[in-house]
Amino acid sequence: MATAVYPGSFDPVTLGHLNIITRAAQVFDEVYVCTLVNSGKAPLFTRDERVELIQRCTAKLGNVYVEAWDDLVVKYVKKCNARIIVKGLRAVSDFDREFQMALVNKINDDDIETLFMASAAKYTYLSSTVVKEMARYGADISEFVPREIIDDVYERVERFKRQAGD
Amino acid sequence: MATAVYPGSFDPVTLGHLNIITRAAQVFDEVYVCTLVNSGKAPLFTRDERVELIQRCTAKLGNVYVEAWDDLVVKYVKKCNARIIVKGLRAVSDFDREFQMALVNKINDDDIETLFMASAAKYTYLSSTVVKEMARYGADISEFVPREIIDDVYERVERFKRQAGD
Amino acid sequence: MATAVYPGSFDPVTLGHLNIITRAAQVFDEVYVCTLVNSGKAPLFTRDERVELIQRCTAKLGNVYVEAWDDLVVKYVKKCNARIIVKGLRAVSDFDREFQMALVNKINDDDIETLFMASAAKYTYLSSTVVKEMARYGADISEFVPREIIDDVYERVERFKRQAGD
Amino acid sequence: MATAVYPGSFDPVTLGHLNIITRAAQVFDEVYVCTLVNSGKAPLFTRDERVELIQRCTAKLGNVYVEAWDDLVVKYVKKCNARIIVKGLRAVSDFDREFQMALVNKINDDDIETLFMASAAKYTYLSSTVVKEMARYGADISEFVPREIIDDVYERVERFKRQAGD
Amino acid sequence: MATAVYPGSFDPVTLGHLNIITRAAQVFDEVYVCTLVNSGKAPLFTRDERVELIQRCTAKLGNVYVEAWDDLVVKYVKKCNARIIVKGLRAVSDFDREFQMALVNKINDDDIETLFMASAAKYTYLSSTVVKEMARYGADISEFVPREIIDDVYERVERFKRQAGD
Amino acid sequence: MATAVYPGSFDPVTLGHLNIITRAAQVFDEVYVCTLVNSGKAPLFTRDERVELIQRCTAKLGNVYVEAWDDLVVKYVKKCNARIIVKGLRAVSDFDREFQMALVNKINDDDIETLFMASAAKYTYLSSTVVKEMARYGADISEFVPREIIDDVYERVERFKRQAGD
Repeated sequence: MATAVYPGSFDPVTLGHLNIITRAAQVFDEVYVCTLVNSGKAPLFTRDERVELIQRCTAKLGNVYVEAWDDLVVKYVKKCNARIIVKGLRAVSDFDREFQMALVNKINDDDIETLFMASAAKYTYLSSTVVKEMARYGADISEFVPREIIDDVYERVERFKRQAGD
Repeated sequence: MATAVYPGSFDPVTLGHLNIITRAAQVFDEVYVCTLVNSGKAPLFTRDERVELIQRCTAKLGNVYVEAWDDLVVKYVKKCNARIIVKGLRAVSDFDREFQMALVNKINDDDIETLFMASAAKYTYLSSTVVKEMARYGADISEFVPREIIDDVYERVERFKRQAGD
Repeated sequence: MATAVYPGSFDPVTLGHLNIITRAAQVFDEVYVCTLVNSGKAPLFTRDERVELIQRCTAKLGNVYVEAWDDLVVKYVKKCNARIIVKGLRAVSDFDREFQMALVNKINDDDIETLFMASAAKYTYLSSTVVKEMARYGADISEFVPREIIDDVYERVERFKRQAGD
Repeated sequence: MATAVYPGSFDPVTLGHLNIITRAAQVFDEVYVCTLVNSGKAPLFTRDERVELIQRCTAKLGNVYVEAWDDLVVKYVKKCNARIIVKGLRAVSDFDREFQMALVNKINDDDIETLFMASAAKYTYLSSTVVKEMARYGADISEFVPREIIDDVYERVERFKRQAGD
Repeated sequence: MATAVYPGSFDPVTLGHLNIITRAAQVFDEVYVCTLVNSGKAPLFTRDERVELIQRCTAKLGNVYVEAWDDLVVKYVKKCNARIIVKGLRAVSDFDREFQMALVNKINDDDIETLFMASAAKYTYLSSTVVKEMARYGADISEFVPREIIDDVYERVERFKRQAGD
Repeated sequence: MATAVYPGSFDPVTLGHLNIITRAAQVFDEVYVCTLVNSGKAPLFTRDERVELIQRCTAKLGNVYVEAWDDLVVKYVKKCNARIIVKGLRAVSDFDREFQMALVNKINDDDIETLFMASAAKYTYLSSTVVKEMARYGADISEFVPREIIDDVYERVERFKRQAGD
């Protein structure tokens, strides 16, 4: 049975991420999404909140599971009895970083393969960072994040702005 | 059951290709390799010869099948009852062409996904074209092509040189 | 009055090209499309046929003019009393070639500026070459070329195949 | 009348920026330069100082206006009754970020087009960051920033070094 | 006599760096390695510790010298009576940054040339940052850093984690 | 004594090539330029003519030697008792091809190193192909090729046009 792990920081999950999850859920038997700590950035949502947001958007996908994780990705893959990591590749700027991670994961555990999916063309230039920038200015983010979480993003960004006295 | 198709021109198959086939054979239940016509280039080996060369190098991989094909790749994928195309990505120069093909294949048949594997680092700059150039000068190609086909490559390149009065 | 020239080989014009023409027609007063000879490739359509195909697809755009040209692009720009060349940029693979041409045009005539528009995301990986490959296999090209010219493309590709005894 | 907006952080304005402004002023009727906050970096000069520095270097260009702005760029474009954003593209590393911003701006307001100019070759690798690094070591920056602001840059960098007890 | 300078932050030195040093020591008469401050990042090792770590790994290379430096690289090159800077180029993501530095160095001192060596393929995606991330999770780093310094890296990363109460 | 080999097709030699030769002649004791056959393209000038054209432009550089060669580059390097190949890197599009050649040369002979020089910024987008295209249209090529060979290029391009009945 082909099980795939889809790791990321998902802060917040975008329509680009959801597109990869949906397509992965069609070609693999089970997809485990895991939210990682992104060291070096103060997150908008906690790891557990990010899990809940993704669960809300993937409720209809019966073979998708979401969990938080704070260790090497390869250990999570082992825990899921999986051998496959799935990642989206958007543009050339993703390339080096993602290949580096794939190589590192393979060195950590030679049984594990990373398989890349090309992002849907309309999400090529979409990222969680763009979503946060736009929400900060009150711009429309409905083409960027799943409908189910739009309010959460605006609300959280506003709270951060108030706290910063911004 | 997860079945993957690995299409290419394989003229000739290199150690880079064989690396992808071997890794795909480990994560998928069955791997169908198909040799395509590469319009616009006079091939070194005929399509059927290329099938035989790959079969020779993959004889020990019980779940790998090799065939020639001369139509849209998506039709071959359907014929194999598969939904997955596997491709290797070497360097940035592969990126645009491969993403274009993945998109075109998806438009041709939305059920089909292309999954990319990062080439093993030591094969990043290896291609069939490099192999042919080196063989033409009598250079050592044993780090580039499977042992089983080295003699065939030299022999064929020599025959071409004689025919060209080169 | 801001006049822009949009040069290319357009063999055939795609929805990606048409997207650039339409957007250029909105921000410039007049847009002159010129079809160039693409030395080194046998074209599918003659230069004059390509002009007619583009005219058919742009009939509703009152400020777009189409002509054939066989000389330096900068001379055409002068002939149109224009100073601006417009080009679409799809992906990184376009970058070097297009920047080279922009530099060469600027050296040929320092008054002339090339302005690049980012291709619409869904046309990032679309090219005339892809269209021709797909038409050759009888695949659906309706997401790639303007409705008005679909039949012409299939017909011409078929004629080429018959001539080649393909 | 073709009006263009040229947004950036310009901390400080370089000869590369000035080259874009000058060329834009030649092909557009009016060019509005706006200095943005660059969230995440402590600037060398305040937004208003940056406006003044650019004004000093563009005093001879009668159709260039400079202002500070702290909101979405598309709102500034509307305020100027413009439809065109002009950006310089230096090298491939600019590509993804700039295309992302162009897409986001177009989604925010579909009437607005971003037009890219290729940087003059000699400024391909020039950035405000390079200027600051060099000034910090007392190196000659006269090939990098407009003559009119050289002293301001050295002075400010020195003040920062004293404050940091560097 | 051809003398080359190899500058970097080396925090810590990796097998990729050591590969460049070794190859440079074969084609140049003398190689001066200099460890620079990397402004903006809190280093794992002090500049002097980094010098000692590199010396330990290059003890057998008789024509390699290691020193700390805190000024423009070109001034160090002059101090060594050298005219050549050597840098490794891994992947496209290095390209723009390294070319920028080479240009800046040439403008600072026109006598100085930067010569790039392609990284060995197996080190294409290796960086000091990757090493630190892996060490933080206790992963095996023996394929990434010289044997002589593995323990130092683990020890230092552990100390940082304890200090951060991590 | 540091000897470097600079291989290429040089059809014709451009100011970009001459810039690399001049800089190489300053940092190496001797520079051997060798003109290679470029399989797959009909050259403008024969290999021997190309040697003569380069000799003419480098007459004042006492440590530069020019020869034709029709075998693996590494064999020429051996013949010159050299260990260093010098190549110019212009833009990202050169990267993969040049790294591939460097790797292949290193596999052919592990003693040999390829050292890359960044092209001077103003020659980033210059190539022999651009020169030929421009000469074909009678455009000014004086910023692209050495003064000494301008007439030869025009004359030869004209002869080709007459022969092609163009």
